[in-house]
Amino acid sequence: MSKDIYYAQREKVYMSGTLYPDIRVGMQRVNLTPTVSIVDGEKVLTPNDPVYIYDTSGPFSDPNIQIDLEKGINRIRQSWIEARQKAGQPIGHLACARAGIITPEMEYVSIRENMNCRELGIETSITPEFVRQEIAEGRAVLPANINHPESEPMIIGRNFLVKINTNIGNSATSSSIDEEVEKAVWSCRWGGDTLMDLSTGNNIHETREWILRNSPVPVGTVPIYQALEKVDGRVEELTWEIYRDTLIEQCEQGVDYFTIHAGIRLKNVHLADKRTCGIVSRGGSIMSKWCLTKQRESFLYEHFDEICDILARYDVAVSLGDGLRPGCIADANDEAQFAELDTLGELVLRAWQKNVQAFIEGPGHVPLHKIRENMERQIEKCHNAPFYTLGPLVTDIAPGYDHITSAIGATQIGWLGTAMLCYVTPKEHLGLPNKEDVRTGVITYKIAAHAADLAKGHPGAQVRDNALSKARYEFRWRDQFHLSLDPDRALEYFQEGHHTDGEYCTMCGPNFCAMRLSREVINK
Amino acid sequence: MSKDIYYAQREKVYMSGTLYPDIRVGMQRVNLTPTVSIVDGEKVLTPNDPVYIYDTSGPFSDPNIQIDLEKGINRIRQSWIEARQKAGQPIGHLACARAGIITPEMEYVSIRENMNCRELGIETSITPEFVRQEIAEGRAVLPANINHPESEPMIIGRNFLVKINTNIGNSATSSSIDEEVEKAVWSCRWGGDTLMDLSTGNNIHETREWILRNSPVPVGTVPIYQALEKVDGRVEELTWEIYRDTLIEQCEQGVDYFTIHAGIRLKNVHLADKRTCGIVSRGGSIMSKWCLTKQRESFLYEHFDEICDILARYDVAVSLGDGLRPGCIADANDEAQFAELDTLGELVLRAWQKNVQAFIEGPGHVPLHKIRENMERQIEKCHNAPFYTLGPLVTDIAPGYDHITSAIGATQIGWLGTAMLCYVTPKEHLGLPNKEDVRTGVITYKIAAHAADLAKGHPGAQVRDNALSKARYEFRWRDQFHLSLDPDRALEYFQEGHHTDGEYCTMCGPNFCAMRLSREVINK
Repeated sequence: MSKDIYYAQREKVYMSGTLYPDIRVGMQRVNLTPTVSIVDGEKVLTPNDPVYIYDTSGPFSDPNIQIDLEKGINRIRQSWIEARQKAGQPIGHLACARAGIITPEMEYVSIRENMNCRELGIETSITPEFVRQEIAEGRAVLPANINHPESEPMIIGRNFLVKINTNIGNSATSSSIDEEVEKAVWSCRWGGDTLMDLSTGNNIHETREWILRNSPVPVGTVPIYQALEKVDGRVEELTWEIYRDTLIEQCEQGVDYFTIHAGIRLKNVHLADKRTCGIVSRGGSIMSKWCLTKQRESFLYEHFDEICDILARYDVAVSLGDGLRPGCIADANDEAQFAELDTLGELVLRAWQKNVQAFIEGPGHVPLHKIRENMERQIEKCHNAPFYTLGPLVTDIAPGYDHITSAIGATQIGWLGTAMLCYVTPKEHLGLPNKEDVRTGVITYKIAAHAADLAKGHPGAQVRDNALSKARYEFRWRDQFHLSLDPDRALEYFQEGHHTDGEYCTMCGPNFCAMRLSREVINK
Repeated sequence: MSKDIYYAQREKVYMSGTLYPDIRVGMQRVNLTPTVSIVDGEKVLTPNDPVYIYDTSGPFSDPNIQIDLEKGINRIRQSWIEARQKAGQPIGHLACARAGIITPEMEYVSIRENMNCRELGIETSITPEFVRQEIAEGRAVLPANINHPESEPMIIGRNFLVKINTNIGNSATSSSIDEEVEKAVWSCRWGGDTLMDLSTGNNIHETREWILRNSPVPVGTVPIYQALEKVDGRVEELTWEIYRDTLIEQCEQGVDYFTIHAGIRLKNVHLADKRTCGIVSRGGSIMSKWCLTKQRESFLYEHFDEICDILARYDVAVSLGDGLRPGCIADANDEAQFAELDTLGELVLRAWQKNVQAFIEGPGHVPLHKIRENMERQIEKCHNAPFYTLGPLVTDIAPGYDHITSAIGATQIGWLGTAMLCYVTPKEHLGLPNKEDVRTGVITYKIAAHAADLAKGHPGAQVRDNALSKARYEFRWRDQFHLSLDPDRALEYFQEGHHTDGEYCTMCGPNFCAMRLSREVINK
């Protein structure tokens, strides 16, 4: 590594709003070193524009902010929520959007979505008014429980950057609260846009409290898990009342969105009988068992309007769970899956009637050639509500590498219009992820999401690719690493090579470095 | 893990030919444990069909064969080659195919391509005669130097299983012969279909000799690398004579295909001037420098017919190198790239005139939405010759994870018709891969290739997915692992979870295991 005094560095900076000047949108600015060239024997330095990077790490990446996990992080939305209450505006973002109100949250996300556009003069259609319209029409969701003011606004919709969700949570057999909070912060650091706490073991309430008070990203849960713990795992003892109380408990705590498997209908459960892998959704299998045992329609479906009334009071969004998603290639795009999708399409209209923001969960396991049908059907049947998929995995034969099999499908479906991708770690199908697995899962999904953004032509998305590639070509290694999704990993691999100077790496050695040769012959 | 006495295991087996009964096609048979069910209180065992897996590991996975690296592995094609010579048949496979001759190699690949079809009665169009036709029409290549009789026949073409190539080779700054041979064997073990020795440092000839004598898969090289070493890295001293002698030396040793960057034309090199990353192909940058320095057309282009005459004498295939492939998203699908592709289309016709099998190398770095154009243009301009791509990487921002960014593009282009995918390891852009990187790169590309096979509907491809998923649903963990691409990794992750019985994993714990619940409610 050459001793360049112009070491690049990442720096936490904030951008202010125009409609709401007190908004401060945190982002990473990568300050690049200049390009060095020799002109007439003289060394000439040409500066490179800094690159702004969308940042999900909140205060955890700001060296000027002291973090005290016991107190929780700064409640950045508190004053905005109170101002709306004082002004007598609606509580929820869907209602606000429909009433023509542009909230601070809406301007916040418009700034976040346009990273690098203002600075580089890149045209963008993503104005605060556009954000409002997309929410009003149900094409986008801004999850923002009034009791989770710590979360930095973000938006889920197919005309925005593709987002990724990370799952954490203990199970009966593993992990402690400390570990889960550490994983939560860790997943935000690497780029998780939302966080689902899927805890099923002890201390569900307390684990969630710690996570919420320290999460700069929206938090989702699957409330049926806690409800089931309340009846000691006996599915047949689940009731609407227990579930309702659990919902209220979690709304009060600040959960931003709930996965609710209300699409499981008694008449459809048998459609899974002919499958290779049956029902692989935990919520789906619980509700199917409940329906079959009692031979009754599920309380989630029957009480869906009441559920929405509760959610609307807190601006909690509903993620309509796909309890019958396919769990293997053989089951993809089958009757069970698509029958449930039809029900989800009904439910999304009912949610909207109640001013509840809604999005739709999707598969799962789908071979590449069957992915398009999933997206097109979802758009049609679910009236343009955002799609939120788990992968999909494009083959079943790679346990231990399912972050990769699923990222392949995720990129494809993201390109086609899926708004949020639920990450998968290398441990999928085998065990609970540890911290390193979370990092690998998040980075893999950041790749999928970003590749989809490039393919969709999101304004400004390619700025980072271009800057990194220019740095690569000019052997500005530190710049390259700081611009990359995982600077630590890139540097670690690079340093394994024992470099003697900055003009090549061990891959080709000095005589066979194409870029070096290229720079000798190309007129630039 | 439950103490199941029916532990599944992988076993090396051989299948014989019909036209040529002495053919023995090695494959892995996974012997599965029976499905256990309880009927009227009685335990009932239902057997599961064994699954056959395409096997690239040659004798290294046969416990009955002693390996002596000094002597080299068994020369399985020797007698077939001699028989053709005695019968006065053409030397090359293209000439044989055109003359209507079905060689033992052709029947061999037809057996390999139909894994599980015969046993399960799956219809397949891949007969020995079909193989012959595809080769005769240039749509497929069977690389098989008469001096590399150790290699097990395989075929590269879009109507066959998608293949993957692995690269090994030392550079001036790293690694020894032992390490390279070990990596070669290792890459075959995990599933590499061909192997390129890209060594550029010392002992190129000797390293290659060791690799060839012990490689059960076809070996490719880029002869310009060795030619450049012969002139101590001074590009301007390269001559046709030095290159020709190097070609002959490598043909004599047994290299099965050569990457030749004959598509670099003096008139086109300047097209790279406006690029972000210039020329990123080593061979491309060498030949571009040669052309520009001398202001002459390259000797590869000018002597291409003579090159083909040499190759034809040994049945060596030509892989037409893409010296101007894009090295970043910004440069994808540009004028430089497509101008070279036009030249490659010319050259493929010249190769075919000389009875030389040919395929075409492709990018590189291409965003997802620009991949289709690559494939369609290649088919059109290169007259259906097989396409062999490096990735492509669908974003530039993930150094350290470029096996993943590239596998996403590779799956897409494989689905669209690319016949062989050149693997990328996590060290791409950063350094030379070690053994673990080779394993990760190979498995990642096996995923891409298999996912593409599923999407293309290759006969029998889904048998393995289905068997694995059934094993997963029935908690036959060992079966699941033995069917997976990397059984060791899957088992390792599973065991981290400290399981107490076989009916769940740490991911969900016992009460929340969807599959367990599903099995309780589903009638099967």
